[in-house]
Parts: sequence; C-alpha cells; structure tokens
Amino acid sequence: MKLYDENMPAPNPRKVRIYLAEKGITVPTERVRMMKREHKAPEFMAKNSLGQVPVLELDDGTYLSESIAICRYFEALHPEPPLFGRDAREQAFVEMWMRRAEFRLWGPAGQVWINDDPRTAMVNPNQFPDYGARNRKIVAGAMTWLDGELADGRAWLAGENYSMADIVLLCGIDFAKFVNMDMPEDAKHLRAWHERVSARPSARA
Amino acid sequence: MKLYDENMPAPNPRKVRIYLAEKGITVPTERVRMMKREHKAPEFMAKNSLGQVPVLELDDGTYLSESIAICRYFEALHPEPPLFGRDAREQAFVEMWMRRAEFRLWGPAGQVWINDDPRTAMVNPNQFPDYGARNRKIVAGAMTWLDGELADGRAWLAGENYSMADIVLLCGIDFAKFVNMDMPEDAKHLRAWHERVSARPSARA
Repeated sequence: MKLYDENMPAPNPRKVRIYLAEKGITVPTERVRMMKREHKAPEFMAKNSLGQVPVLELDDGTYLSESIAICRYFEALHPEPPLFGRDAREQAFVEMWMRRAEFRLWGPAGQVWINDDPRTAMVNPNQFPDYGARNRKIVAGAMTWLDGELADGRAWLAGENYSMADIVLLCGIDFAKFVNMDMPEDAKHLRAWHERVSARPSARA
Repeated sequence: MKLYDENMPAPNPRKVRIYLAEKGITVPTERVRMMKREHKAPEFMAKNSLGQVPVLELDDGTYLSESIAICRYFEALHPEPPLFGRDAREQAFVEMWMRRAEFRLWGPAGQVWINDDPRTAMVNPNQFPDYGARNRKIVAGAMTWLDGELADGRAWLAGENYSMADIVLLCGIDFAKFVNMDMPEDAKHLRAWHERVSARPSARA
C-alpha cells in the first residue's frame, strides 16, 4: 500500500494522518505538492480523476480516494481500537456526527474558501465574495449550534468515546480558522472540546 | 422504532425508503409535512435540532438523523443483502462513490436549489442566482464526469454489486432533474445506468 498525502493546511489528508496516528498504523507515503499543482498533473489524475488528495494505492494496484473511505478501509483491516463506533448504535451516531460536521461546517467553510479568500482567487477568478461572506455567517452559526450540542457535558462529539467524528470536526474547525473563522469567544463547550481533542498527540499528525 | 419521513421530491427521505425496500425492512412511519414547515416546528426540532427529515426514533427513545447514518444502523442490524459492501475493499469503494456522488453532484445541486430556484425564494429571500447558475454548470460537468467513469461498462456505480452508492446517486440525479438539470443527452453510460437503477422496484419507494 502507499498513501498519496499532502501537508498542512490541507484538511482532508490531515484527517487520514490523525486517524492512522490514533490507530498506530504506518503506511509508506508519497507527498503530492498541491502548491506545485501536482494533484492536477496527468500522472496523478490517472490515480484520481478528480485530482484530489489523499489517495491510497491498494496492494492490487487500484486507487482509493476520499479520506473517509480510506479510513474505513483501514478500520476493516485493523478494527482495534474502533474509531467508527463499537456497536450498531454507536456506529450510527459516529456517522451522524461526521456528516453533521461535514454538511454544517466543512460545506460552508469550503464555500468561503473558494469564494472569499485571496489565496484561491488565482485558480478561481470568478469568486462570489458576497456569497462567501454569507457563508462566514453560516459557519459562525454552525459553531454556535455545535457549542449548544456539546453543552450536555459529553467528552467527545459522538458520545462517550473518541471517534472519527472528532477527527472530522477537529480538521474542520482548524481549516475554518485557516480561512479566518475562529470559534466564537463564548462557545465555551466547543472550545473545551477543541482543547481536549487538540491535546491528543495525534492532532500533530 | 419509528421513521419520520417525507414524500417526494425530498431526496434524503427517499434514500432511506429505497434502502429499506431493497432490504425488505418495514418500519412504522410518520409523515412530516415539509410544505407545512412541520420539520421546523419545536416538537420536531427537539428530535433533530437541525430541523431535517428523515429522523429515526430508536427503541431507547433517542433520535438518529442523517439518512446514511439511519441506513448504516439498519445495515448493522440486518446485514443481508449487504448494501454497504461485502468486504473491506468493497466497503471502501461504496463509501468512496457515495461521497463522490454527494460532493460532486448533491453539493452543487443543493447550491442551485437554494440560490436559483423560485420555489426556495420564499424561505431564502437572499438568493445568489449567478452563483446558482455557476453551479448548474458544475452539476452538468459532474454528470459528464460520471458518464466517463461509467464508460468501463460496469453495471453499478461502485462495481459489480448494486449498493448504497447507486441509491445516493439515483436520488441525486432525480433531485437535479427536479431542479431542472437533466442528464446531458450524450451521457449514454450514465443514462443507461440510470435506467437500470430506476427499473428496480425499490426506485418507486
């Protein structure tokens, strides 16, 4: 196997690295330099026709894309410790919280990134900055909503166990900060959760 | 258990209904009338603070949101026939294709729906029709890309077995059509796949 990876701040490769660090799995890695547009080069597009990182090359020579799909593949091969839930109920709630983090936070943060950030203006000259600004408000609202959901005092996003949902939200929050959207000052439950997740050694992966 | 459901054209509840039909599972159901904004009423918001359908009430009284999370819960309880993949490899590729259908097709189609459709203008008065128009092109591009991916002649989106990925893409394509974005005329592989998936009795669920 071989993982095609990229460094910070790319949030999707980071999800996989944190997951692997939590599981204690080591995979041979090749860096794809996005700043040099290596992910859009024909050689890489043959591995993932969407030109996105990460990609996992399997031992049979096929290529697997999508960070969560890559993590699920490792989860099936190495079930312990479980990061996608321990039983049917927990698996469902991990899935629910991953998706809530993606649709509520990652989605609008991505809209800001492509429409209202000077660093993407070169590859995306037709930005819609007003729509980006609207989505900044949606991201702030999502963070406030998450803060309310975490107010019940649970330690981790999907319940009593650290899971892939925490990894997805951590990378989403940190990516939002990279696009100049930090957590609201008064979001104390979300901030406490973020501190807890960031304190794990895996967060530096 | 009880499923909070809504009729066509709502695409997310439809995913769950098709899944249940394929599995032969029957669940007591209560309809949430979105046209009457019942999904935003306090009674329903207490079940899902995002005010979205579907929701599954579990036997222990907790509420599970997100259509894929609901289907995964049923999959863990009723593994046969497998719709999320038969082994580690197939599970990973089902996940990959679900996500590609969601991020490439559902995402931009949703941007069109909220920004450039007269039927959402009432609840979303600050539409960005130019951005909606941009996303119409992105949807068309995604359909052309999917057509190319299906050109290898495989019967189903994730490979040799019908799966949840087919359900997600079917509901996405049909939702896009509802927002006036049909498959390109020359997308013959995608159209053949769509005909094949639509011919299954579950597609009428």
